[in-house]
Amino acid sequence: MKFLDKINSPLELKQLKTSELPILANEIREYIIQSVSKTGGHLASNLGVVELTVAMHYSLNTPEDKIIWDVGHQSYVHKILTGRKNEMSTLRQLKGLSGFPKRAESIYDCFDTGHSSTSISAAMGMARARDLKKENYEIVAVIGDGALTGGMAFEALNDAGRSNTKLIIILNDNEMSISKNVGGLSKYLSKVRTDTRYLSTKKDVEKILNNMPVAGGKVKAFLKRAKDAVKQMVVPGMLFEELGLTYMGPIDGHNIDDLLEAFKTAKNIEGPLIMHVVTKKGKGYKFAEQRPNEYHGVSAFDIETGKNIKESTVASYSDVFGKKLCEIAENNNNVVAITAAMTDGTGLTNFARKFPKRIFDAGIAEQHAVTMAAGLAANGIVPVVALYSSFLQRAYDQVIHDVAIQNLHVVLAVDRAGLVGNDGETHQGVFDESFLIQIPNMTVMCPADYRELESMLEYAVNEIDGPVAIRYPRGSLKEYVSGSYKKIEKGKGIVAEEGSDVTIAASGKMVVTALHVREILKEQDIDAEVVNLRFIKPLDDNLLLKSVMKTKKAVVIDEAVPWGSFALSIKAALQDHADVLIKTLPDEFIRHGTVEELLKENNMDPESIAYDIKKFLGR
Amino acid sequence: MKFLDKINSPLELKQLKTSELPILANEIREYIIQSVSKTGGHLASNLGVVELTVAMHYSLNTPEDKIIWDVGHQSYVHKILTGRKNEMSTLRQLKGLSGFPKRAESIYDCFDTGHSSTSISAAMGMARARDLKKENYEIVAVIGDGALTGGMAFEALNDAGRSNTKLIIILNDNEMSISKNVGGLSKYLSKVRTDTRYLSTKKDVEKILNNMPVAGGKVKAFLKRAKDAVKQMVVPGMLFEELGLTYMGPIDGHNIDDLLEAFKTAKNIEGPLIMHVVTKKGKGYKFAEQRPNEYHGVSAFDIETGKNIKESTVASYSDVFGKKLCEIAENNNNVVAITAAMTDGTGLTNFARKFPKRIFDAGIAEQHAVTMAAGLAANGIVPVVALYSSFLQRAYDQVIHDVAIQNLHVVLAVDRAGLVGNDGETHQGVFDESFLIQIPNMTVMCPADYRELESMLEYAVNEIDGPVAIRYPRGSLKEYVSGSYKKIEKGKGIVAEEGSDVTIAASGKMVVTALHVREILKEQDIDAEVVNLRFIKPLDDNLLLKSVMKTKKAVVIDEAVPWGSFALSIKAALQDHADVLIKTLPDEFIRHGTVEELLKENNMDPESIAYDIKKFLGR
Repeated sequence: MKFLDKINSPLELKQLKTSELPILANEIREYIIQSVSKTGGHLASNLGVVELTVAMHYSLNTPEDKIIWDVGHQSYVHKILTGRKNEMSTLRQLKGLSGFPKRAESIYDCFDTGHSSTSISAAMGMARARDLKKENYEIVAVIGDGALTGGMAFEALNDAGRSNTKLIIILNDNEMSISKNVGGLSKYLSKVRTDTRYLSTKKDVEKILNNMPVAGGKVKAFLKRAKDAVKQMVVPGMLFEELGLTYMGPIDGHNIDDLLEAFKTAKNIEGPLIMHVVTKKGKGYKFAEQRPNEYHGVSAFDIETGKNIKESTVASYSDVFGKKLCEIAENNNNVVAITAAMTDGTGLTNFARKFPKRIFDAGIAEQHAVTMAAGLAANGIVPVVALYSSFLQRAYDQVIHDVAIQNLHVVLAVDRAGLVGNDGETHQGVFDESFLIQIPNMTVMCPADYRELESMLEYAVNEIDGPVAIRYPRGSLKEYVSGSYKKIEKGKGIVAEEGSDVTIAASGKMVVTALHVREILKEQDIDAEVVNLRFIKPLDDNLLLKSVMKTKKAVVIDEAVPWGSFALSIKAALQDHADVLIKTLPDEFIRHGTVEELLKENNMDPESIAYDIKKFLGR
Repeated sequence: MKFLDKINSPLELKQLKTSELPILANEIREYIIQSVSKTGGHLASNLGVVELTVAMHYSLNTPEDKIIWDVGHQSYVHKILTGRKNEMSTLRQLKGLSGFPKRAESIYDCFDTGHSSTSISAAMGMARARDLKKENYEIVAVIGDGALTGGMAFEALNDAGRSNTKLIIILNDNEMSISKNVGGLSKYLSKVRTDTRYLSTKKDVEKILNNMPVAGGKVKAFLKRAKDAVKQMVVPGMLFEELGLTYMGPIDGHNIDDLLEAFKTAKNIEGPLIMHVVTKKGKGYKFAEQRPNEYHGVSAFDIETGKNIKESTVASYSDVFGKKLCEIAENNNNVVAITAAMTDGTGLTNFARKFPKRIFDAGIAEQHAVTMAAGLAANGIVPVVALYSSFLQRAYDQVIHDVAIQNLHVVLAVDRAGLVGNDGETHQGVFDESFLIQIPNMTVMCPADYRELESMLEYAVNEIDGPVAIRYPRGSLKEYVSGSYKKIEKGKGIVAEEGSDVTIAASGKMVVTALHVREILKEQDIDAEVVNLRFIKPLDDNLLLKSVMKTKKAVVIDEAVPWGSFALSIKAALQDHADVLIKTLPDEFIRHGTVEELLKENNMDPESIAYDIKKFLGR
């Protein structure tokens, strides 16, 4: 590639003429499509910010100037321009490039991101640090219109607005978060985008006003303010101006000249500024332009056809959840679904089609989603809130304060619980278990397979009261588990396989692992009993006690952080009756890789666990 | 009192003539001042909403119509008007009236609150439930301008704005949260308040525009939009209108006739509506009007002088923290403080005076506060974020995602950790311990007395790196603890008192309790060793092992929820060497009462613990 081949850092980029930048942009676009078609990753969002990223690095003086990427999955162009082009083939793979900005990866990555709506807060902190140290450089936060619906972005805008801190906020407005954006703000931005035609009339209007007859008294006072009114009319971003930010835009995010011009202006404006850049998600790759949410996150695909190379026809946990919820909702009119900008990801697409009035997409707003659910429950509706484990962290206070204290019947469907793999440390679902079991009034279940997911959902909606969480993993079931057809009973586990030498207790997908461990141990004449806990709160101490009466030894397998694990509660309960070995993930953040690789690396694969159990048993 | 005496529910209220309502309001105001002067409680906020609450219950049909009180500490007038007048003398006392709305307390309380910014989300949920059930009644959320700075309020406004759900949001604008409100939104509201003078010119302006010469082309298109511009100019709440809500106001919140008129209008408007009511915090009691933040939450006071009856001259943990932080900041220019609308409550008033450029008040915005701290830390500043334990719950994801994953040196000063007493279940600081120790890279310390608070703060700021939390209780130190002058060393506890029969391990203020337990046991010839853990993460397993080598028995005392407690980790670590008894709070939400009463009720006072230890030792 003519230009891209020569670029190993923003220094080389700056050698290009501005007229060459659009060609470079095309090369980058092609490079990304090629690269992501092999590795998988986030496609549409990166294709949307090619010109923006080129213009930014051309205009700014990185790494001294800092760019903070909200969410961060749109940072591929940035990675390519900052010396990581050749590593793109390792993207999201074990020990390869992260799919998100990482301080540990490059000096050009100044702040790690992964969850939505954090960038303005981080930028405000960095800007205030710069000012305190009397340093002088630009700080730029790049945030999508979807991420702007997250409350903390507003908290930060509100703080920025009254500060005099120099800060450039780029509103990357592609009319989408992951799926179609929702909310009043979205409507507003859409209005602003179509308002551009009025910009050109600004001068005419001012002329008219200047020529208006001068009246006396109140009307005169009014006329003085009329100019402000004109500004309100012709400056479409008045909502932001009202908060105290300077508004620039809307700017065509695929026109590099306009972008360069905008950056030149922005750098000379004091105080906090919001630059409204309109981009097209998936730009330049027809399939992604047509169906941007399908091409938000992709696995390896064929560029010609746009199709997945390994077409998965296997239903995922999310699919099974969504299908079962439809079935439940057909028989129970009081059931509704709530999602936070993740209708597709959580398997609710069909539900939304079948019951459009019974699904509420809160936007990227987990806090609002959970408290709204509490409001629905307080008025007799049964809300099922489907969120990814790592995003539920955002609503921790709301689960305690609005749901659990009032003991309201809210069903939390915790998707992506456990390791998620390639998205890395920000997305691993390894905390929800500990933070949910701490909370009084909570019931927490983990299905070992699809049958249990279905029966637990039925049970959670129709058979119990109070707050209840069902946590299930990313991806698809590997195999069914013996006994999983048995009826769900409050706080009761089941014995999946009997044995006499050691009790292995596990929940959720770790039951499958436990059964594999059992097979391995069997070959070595160790006869393990596998207990499928089903509930991690409350725990079935009786079943466990009964089992260890026989075995005298127990192992608890838990794919979560060690501190606060339910395994500790089991160990405490069994203390007088059995030695207990606890196998959890380490007290560390787990990076990206496939789930299998990560489990193996942390000695949580069946072989490693079997090995540890043998040692524990003294064999 | 002429009118108030007759009122036991809104039914009696509705019998009054509108001209009698202002007299009733005065009676209520007097009643509240009398009542709160004896019980203590939230004063200024309640005095500010007397007329508003009277007008609301007069206009609405409660309890069928629902009122949701954001935060809820301003619900006293509501409680008085809904049959709880005579119980006001039991306010915030054990088994008495709660200081917040409680569904369990009255059918007029439709949703529990306590933390800020939840009401619009809850109201949206309740409204959607109403619509699904095809019921027909009003839902009203009452939210202060301070609470509106919390991100989840914006998330809810954004959702409400694009819905067609009938909902009345009352913006109770008193220019304050607890202390002076901050942020761009606050500036905006202030502008709106002063804009009222332009309302009267609306007609004049429309006339002028109608008489303007009709031009062609672009200018004509402009003129068509000019009317909108006028609306923007004369409808001051355009920021809300842009989000899709109907805006009404500003309305004088102390003029009952205006309020009644406004409610009449509001009830006839479809869709979501925001009614901007301007009130004065502390209205009608001169001391509270003059210094509303001092009279936000009060203990028993003398009405004539406005002074506390038991004037406390004892420094609190917050005071000691604030004083020490000033000292540290004097010697280290890189240290800054961050608060979330709690400068006074967290003891930072003096810091703010001495270092006005080195303290950042994020508003009621814990999420933003923590991520901004991460931004500061990423640029080499050491931020100390002072938050109450129960409010830190709001920033759980930010602590994990923005601070801990990047291993940034952010100091969390967790005030009000442990039971807080009279504010009840929403404010008890019983979760932070478990949720903080789960997080990789975190160090968590608990000072047993003021000396340790000071040395831990010094240590956290100047001697270690990475995320660190210091959690300390509400109120004042009861007594100093032996050995607390000793230097803080990473992960090291100390033996506070030696003994040979049983090891009692505790942290923070529970060390004092443990020492009392030791005294009680001593009288019964049991010689207990007391270990002051200092760190609850990492734990000093070696010190504990050394101690139980001698005693063979250990007791861990922990004023927190049982699931996820560090006590379980200790039990696991000592399993092979000692029997371990764990004493924690129960797996329940703890209601209001004094801290002493609540500890006693939950068998966590020294006598109960000593009793349990004796049993445990088989004596």
